[in-house]
Amino acid sequence: MHPLSLRILGTGEHLPATCVESLELDERLKKAPGWTLKHAGIERRYYAGDAETTSSMGAMAARSALAAAGMEAQQLDCIVSACSVMEQAIPCTGTLIQRQLGLEESGIPAFDINATCLSFIAALDLLSTAIAVGRYRRVLVVSSEIASAGLRLDDAETVMLFGDGAAAVVLGSADGADGAELLGTHFETYSAGADLCQVRSGGTRVRPRHDMAEFLRGACFEMQGRATYRMAAQRLPRFLDRLFDRAQVGLAQLGCIIPHQASAKGLAHLEAALKLPSEMLVKVLATRGNQMAASIPVALHHAITSGRLRRGDLTALVGSGAGLSFGGAILRY
Amino acid sequence: MHPLSLRILGTGEHLPATCVESLELDERLKKAPGWTLKHAGIERRYYAGDAETTSSMGAMAARSALAAAGMEAQQLDCIVSACSVMEQAIPCTGTLIQRQLGLEESGIPAFDINATCLSFIAALDLLSTAIAVGRYRRVLVVSSEIASAGLRLDDAETVMLFGDGAAAVVLGSADGADGAELLGTHFETYSAGADLCQVRSGGTRVRPRHDMAEFLRGACFEMQGRATYRMAAQRLPRFLDRLFDRAQVGLAQLGCIIPHQASAKGLAHLEAALKLPSEMLVKVLATRGNQMAASIPVALHHAITSGRLRRGDLTALVGSGAGLSFGGAILRY
Repeated sequence: MHPLSLRILGTGEHLPATCVESLELDERLKKAPGWTLKHAGIERRYYAGDAETTSSMGAMAARSALAAAGMEAQQLDCIVSACSVMEQAIPCTGTLIQRQLGLEESGIPAFDINATCLSFIAALDLLSTAIAVGRYRRVLVVSSEIASAGLRLDDAETVMLFGDGAAAVVLGSADGADGAELLGTHFETYSAGADLCQVRSGGTRVRPRHDMAEFLRGACFEMQGRATYRMAAQRLPRFLDRLFDRAQVGLAQLGCIIPHQASAKGLAHLEAALKLPSEMLVKVLATRGNQMAASIPVALHHAITSGRLRRGDLTALVGSGAGLSFGGAILRY
Repeated sequence: MHPLSLRILGTGEHLPATCVESLELDERLKKAPGWTLKHAGIERRYYAGDAETTSSMGAMAARSALAAAGMEAQQLDCIVSACSVMEQAIPCTGTLIQRQLGLEESGIPAFDINATCLSFIAALDLLSTAIAVGRYRRVLVVSSEIASAGLRLDDAETVMLFGDGAAAVVLGSADGADGAELLGTHFETYSAGADLCQVRSGGTRVRPRHDMAEFLRGACFEMQGRATYRMAAQRLPRFLDRLFDRAQVGLAQLGCIIPHQASAKGLAHLEAALKLPSEMLVKVLATRGNQMAASIPVALHHAITSGRLRRGDLTALVGSGAGLSFGGAILRY
């Protein structure tokens, strides 16, 4: 199938209203000053303010991405929400982002693609095929997350890790001799790990009117950190081999790698698995935390705006997420 | 772009455990016997039993679809959940369906596409492009819904309408001279109607720990039936024109039309808008109710198994859903 003609036309990030320094978290978690930074490798993260919603944050990021692409929102022909957690159960979040962009009478198709923390890669993967056959020309993909809504405030292991945030990317076809292309994508899901990272409530299974206590217990993010890390680490090398094989690209050809910012330990493991020089990975974890599905497009945005990823460069977006899933995309920017 | 080579390899339905006759609902709703049938045009619907989940029902339908396709689950290379409402907030429902199918170590990619009641059409639309470029060869799309989980038992207008259910379809490429193809798809979203059909809770916005009363109010499906009908009816004719225009097909060429089973009034309106003879529409509403995203693939399954849709026939899948969105796909079976 590959390569497919695909160009990233613009990217944008929205930083939520409230900056939370790790020293502040140390206090809340009743830990010694420096504990959070030491254990999570994170200095600060941002939490959505009271007036911010998944869709409002997503729309802010989208406006920046559209400006970077030199486009008006009306020129889009598809809006995709690629978030782990919805803003509300019905309707889908893409619709709510469309409304926040003032496009409520536009008719532009809006829907969601959800592969938890890998939603952005799953959306890029699918929409690149839709763009390739001419189904859509200019697609907005938005990943916006309010992870803080699902944190149990006494669970230091997760509280130290997550942050809120949003990023958006406008995708289009690479017209003419531009050279931008998608060289390969790969995705693997191992539901043997489905219970390792979960929010059990929020859907049809655990219902408040059946058992409120159970519902409230399930309403927060539960993570078996060590088991997740072990399962991911064990399967990562083979996944990466397959990804690079599909793209017919060698590691040495990449300018940088844009990983899911799962954790400092996860990033270190990826470096070790690929035997990477440490400057190969684009890292935003220290000032963002793990922003779930927003993490990869936020890092992509930083790679582009900082000049680390330039037109013509090859890069790989890679990550693992709840499911347990692995996803990757190798592209020429 | 069109036509794309696409073949429906097999379909399946799962009927939930509990049959609820409309006379029984009349009693629960404290209405005269016959009220529900008269107002909803529905004789019975099925509710998920205590042991059934969105993913278990979806997996049952998937097994039937795989059997119809003459395939083993292991031969799939992608699993897509196309449901309105998730089983739980994290991980995505596709992962849970993968596990229910005993594929937990398979690595087969699993994720969700959500366009509320039009999720199946949105998934068919996107995955057909992925199949066309060779990204996937055999894709399982599952729509499974437990609408009863979100019904407020004193709200007769919604209780009379909805039923639970699941359907699954295996999609693949039409190899050789088969003639099966996707002639055109079209999708429109008008988020001006985002509040007309909604479940406000279940996501990041309305949180139990902020305001439990508000959360519980928002946990059930809320529908402004008349306003939804008016907005949908007003925009439907133009949407249908565009859909048929994209597919370059005339109504007279279709063997049957497979609509979303939204309501008896909605089906009657579609007949009137298209000036259809009444036998053109495939209807399962009377014995299923509105099964949300499962409604269109359940009707497709019935059209095929009843012999109304035969190899070589043209058909249109069409519907409107929360968002407010319209979606359609015209294909040669």
